[in-house]
Amino acid sequence: MLPDRAFFDRLAEVAARETLPRFRAGAAVVNKEAGGFDPVTEGDRAAEEAIRAEIERAFPDHGILGEEHGNVGLDRENVWVIDPIDGTRAFISGLPVWGTLIGLYSGGRAKMGLVDQPFTGERYFSDGKASYYTGPGGARQIKTRDCGDISNATLFSTSPHLFAGEDERKYRAVEKTVRLFRYGCDCYAYMLVASGNIDLVVENQLKPYDVGGIIPIIENAGGVITTWDGGRPEMGGRIVAAATPALHKQAMELLAG
Amino acid sequence: MLPDRAFFDRLAEVAARETLPRFRAGAAVVNKEAGGFDPVTEGDRAAEEAIRAEIERAFPDHGILGEEHGNVGLDRENVWVIDPIDGTRAFISGLPVWGTLIGLYSGGRAKMGLVDQPFTGERYFSDGKASYYTGPGGARQIKTRDCGDISNATLFSTSPHLFAGEDERKYRAVEKTVRLFRYGCDCYAYMLVASGNIDLVVENQLKPYDVGGIIPIIENAGGVITTWDGGRPEMGGRIVAAATPALHKQAMELLAG
Repeated sequence: MLPDRAFFDRLAEVAARETLPRFRAGAAVVNKEAGGFDPVTEGDRAAEEAIRAEIERAFPDHGILGEEHGNVGLDRENVWVIDPIDGTRAFISGLPVWGTLIGLYSGGRAKMGLVDQPFTGERYFSDGKASYYTGPGGARQIKTRDCGDISNATLFSTSPHLFAGEDERKYRAVEKTVRLFRYGCDCYAYMLVASGNIDLVVENQLKPYDVGGIIPIIENAGGVITTWDGGRPEMGGRIVAAATPALHKQAMELLAG
Repeated sequence: MLPDRAFFDRLAEVAARETLPRFRAGAAVVNKEAGGFDPVTEGDRAAEEAIRAEIERAFPDHGILGEEHGNVGLDRENVWVIDPIDGTRAFISGLPVWGTLIGLYSGGRAKMGLVDQPFTGERYFSDGKASYYTGPGGARQIKTRDCGDISNATLFSTSPHLFAGEDERKYRAVEKTVRLFRYGCDCYAYMLVASGNIDLVVENQLKPYDVGGIIPIIENAGGVITTWDGGRPEMGGRIVAAATPALHKQAMELLAG
């Protein structure tokens, strides 16, 4: 048995109960570290515990790969891949572009996924067939857009400082080709691709839990997400997400160069 | 007579009626330019018209400095400084860190200001005495925080590509000293300083309307905002905003170097 949308919504809600009260909670607190107060770590751990408890109760035969509390049964058919707070630097800066990421892998493939941003009230979900948005702009099925050519594309990446050596040279080749690029959005950037607002994300050093919840939402909205070598993205690493197969091909040519 | 909070709220509301329906409206529209559809320019112009109409009706003897529709009576005692959509690149990317900025200068000094982000429902306001936040986290008076030393600071800047030559060297000196830096937030970053979530913003090439609405909110929350030379920030240029006078002094030493 696989979970339904209501179950994913429940996971988002139990996570938000732990993350949201800690978001911006440190504002105006002097010298947080001295007092041992670290809201993002607390929120990360508490949210993952809450998510895992729900999964273990409903799907005791599923595996879990989490950021904070280690891994269980990674060789099982169904494995949950969890990042309770993706974008911890955004979180500690008070910037609502972090998200709770929850993916479900079956036979090693990311099949269902959820990305939740509880402060703005935005939630993205894929059931493995289509991708959906709910939030301040209403509820709707989402599709990527077609910008026509990479020279028209909007590119997001977390930071240019992530790349070094050959990777930096390749990343810069993409950056030089696109029309507009921007730094600093973590999971939020992928959701802007899935919802047809931007075209391209190029990143590296990703962990499985950084992409697990994202992959089905991108793929079932019409986008393509792979490693820079064109391989499956489930294990993370160097990742490129594109709004269309044609744009993905153009980006891959620059990243291979 | 000077305006009250209700009047600023009204300006934010007439602006949001023009900006918000155009935000993300281009999603999944292929080749927007070919169709002559430019939502950010349309939104910018329509919002500024709506704001100006309200001001001209209520305060016909005030001057207006706007981004889109030119200037009226800049030599008058009271001058409104308006940027209907600050952060146009965020706006066209679907990223809700743009804002509507409205400042009121009296005798050349920014006295009252408003920053509104209608998608997230966040609004910042200063009446010239204190600074206030309303939004998903509730309503409250805001204060900057004290991070103790610049080595503990979180710094935001729009993009490292804004700086060249000497300016870049000076900016990098600050970036190297802080604990955490991040790119890409326009007006939103200044509001994170005012609300005690981050500590420092360093930018250049700003216009008066990029800072007019921001200055009173920073200053009346306990922060300091000046040019890199320590001058008043009302006319824009190279701007540094810091959470405390001591942090401002530390940043200024690096920017003078």
